Amino acid sequence: MVSSKGGRLISETYAAAGVNIDAAAKTKELIAKHALSTLRPEVLSNLESFGGLFEFKGYNQPVLVSSVDGVGTKLKIASALAKHDTTGIDLVHHCVNDIFTCGAEPLFFLDYIAMGKLVPGQAEAIAQGLAKACREVGCALIGGETAETPGLYAGKDYDLVGFIIGVVEKEKIVTGKTIAADDTIIGLPSSGLHTNGYSLVRKIFGETKPALDTHYPELGQTLGETLLEPHRDYYKQLKPLLPFIKGMAHVTGGGLIGNVPRILPEDVTAQFHSRTWTVPPIFELIQKQGKIARNEMYHVFNMGIGMVIICSPDNAEKITGQLPEARVIGDVVKAKGKERVIIE
Amino acid sequence: MVSSKGGRLISETYAAAGVNIDAAAKTKELIAKHALSTLRPEVLSNLESFGGLFEFKGYNQPVLVSSVDGVGTKLKIASALAKHDTTGIDLVHHCVNDIFTCGAEPLFFLDYIAMGKLVPGQAEAIAQGLAKACREVGCALIGGETAETPGLYAGKDYDLVGFIIGVVEKEKIVTGKTIAADDTIIGLPSSGLHTNGYSLVRKIFGETKPALDTHYPELGQTLGETLLEPHRDYYKQLKPLLPFIKGMAHVTGGGLIGNVPRILPEDVTAQFHSRTWTVPPIFELIQKQGKIARNEMYHVFNMGIGMVIICSPDNAEKITGQLPEARVIGDVVKAKGKERVIIE
Repeated sequence: MVSSKGGRLISETYAAAGVNIDAAAKTKELIAKHALSTLRPEVLSNLESFGGLFEFKGYNQPVLVSSVDGVGTKLKIASALAKHDTTGIDLVHHCVNDIFTCGAEPLFFLDYIAMGKLVPGQAEAIAQGLAKACREVGCALIGGETAETPGLYAGKDYDLVGFIIGVVEKEKIVTGKTIAADDTIIGLPSSGLHTNGYSLVRKIFGETKPALDTHYPELGQTLGETLLEPHRDYYKQLKPLLPFIKGMAHVTGGGLIGNVPRILPEDVTAQFHSRTWTVPPIFELIQKQGKIARNEMYHVFNMGIGMVIICSPDNAEKITGQLPEARVIGDVVKAKGKERVIIE
Repeated sequence: MVSSKGGRLISETYAAAGVNIDAAAKTKELIAKHALSTLRPEVLSNLESFGGLFEFKGYNQPVLVSSVDGVGTKLKIASALAKHDTTGIDLVHHCVNDIFTCGAEPLFFLDYIAMGKLVPGQAEAIAQGLAKACREVGCALIGGETAETPGLYAGKDYDLVGFIIGVVEKEKIVTGKTIAADDTIIGLPSSGLHTNGYSLVRKIFGETKPALDTHYPELGQTLGETLLEPHRDYYKQLKPLLPFIKGMAHVTGGGLIGNVPRILPEDVTAQFHSRTWTVPPIFELIQKQGKIARNEMYHVFNMGIGMVIICSPDNAEKITGQLPEARVIGDVVKAKGKERVIIE
């Protein structure tokens, strides 16, 4: 006869294979505390449920907006510095910004944490970051999966993936379709690299603790502290300004050059005036140390602009007036050949 | 001046860091073809969108049901055999079954594929499996993320994560709340290990190609073929029978013992009669080769039962009559101390 008593589901044999179900149970308990702090009244499920249940009401013509993202190799920096309470913030903000470019408000979030060897305290620190960011934007951390996959991740490595669901009324979807020549391009500052370009940075500086603990006067702090600065959220400050916005591009992998064309109609080009904003010192440091061409820098990094907003010239002041840190950084012009983005 | 021409976003420098944006673009194109084959009329977004857009209509009191899952170290077996077109099927079926235990029908799916070095053909094979399974269950593959994360995954390793959203009318949520003593437990056969127990299996047999290519007479095929058998979908066959079902448990990590208690009210115990079904040869082989206690086997593996259905005795025949492979495998009894599940 086989029975389950007191929730203990692990035996010596399975543990010998590298999977520790006790650690899994402990982790689940630690994470639950944080997840519970994010719940909204619409959440109907509990932690035993096979699925997260979210009651959906109060919309006329709702469109669900979803996105999936990872944190990339920023995780390697976090591991090297054993600082795991901010990667969850990175992930939630990245996902929230992505769906907000369509005008969507976040509803709920699910995470996936996979470790070669499950360390409950580390998983908890990650969940703490997830929950903090979810609370800030009013998004329920409704579910998740913590996987122990021996042999798939080396040493202390782990992967962290997030899935978000938001909603927007169909008539209010922000598409960029009405963007036209003479529109104004406004930029909002990034807090650092956000979650892109870390493989290149690791190549340049290495990822040892001494390298990351090096203090650079131009940064005013260590390299590691600068690199771990969490991805910013733009949703809360931009939400009230949605009526004035024609299109938004979240500046992630590919930088301004890769992301702005995603919202541009075919017949226009985005022209950025690089002298209108100051590129933060971390990017200058990366460029110098890595001997990277300026051109390349704009292909890989956000270069200090984390969110691009396009609006009619009439509305530009309404936006910059509300957001002291926003800058007019370019204009939309008639298409110039195949070039979708020009940075001069 | 920096400009983007013809979509080429990569330079030598970034490639030298191990990130190949050309491979990423190629992969995106290859995956797109498969994803497009799954779309439903509600999908409003295209592949350039920052989020997947799904118009949500036709429900009275909808509850969104979401789940996230991985395939675990079954991926290591797939990598060893260089067979990548079934892991996506595993993932979709796992997710669909999970949300179906609440009575939800699948709406859309997002995937995350992370590789140390992006191999477009391999990512395409994975996407092919995802799309095939999505088409089968009528679920749109609405978005995804393909990440190249050098240094995080070794060699040909990759991770694959799926996220599903389904919907159920609030009054039709299947909760298990009405399960009571004397109810009947019906089991549906699994197709093999599904996606659980692979770390233990790898420990026992190794994961070399010769080990996996070994032919076992009792399996009628090689070990590798048996281990890669995709996770079954139960949604399509069980959906018409929902009115007769009180509760369902998807038998994943933790086996019958770990999963059935998730839907049981406090005052009952699930009593399984193990003689009512034949444990498939792969589990007998694992037990023998690994010298594993029978008890332990039921804690780790599904032992041949992939989905458990609980119904009133009156409805049992309605279900087994429609599903020739379904078997009555136990009863619900009044709670016996702390034991939630008994297998005799």
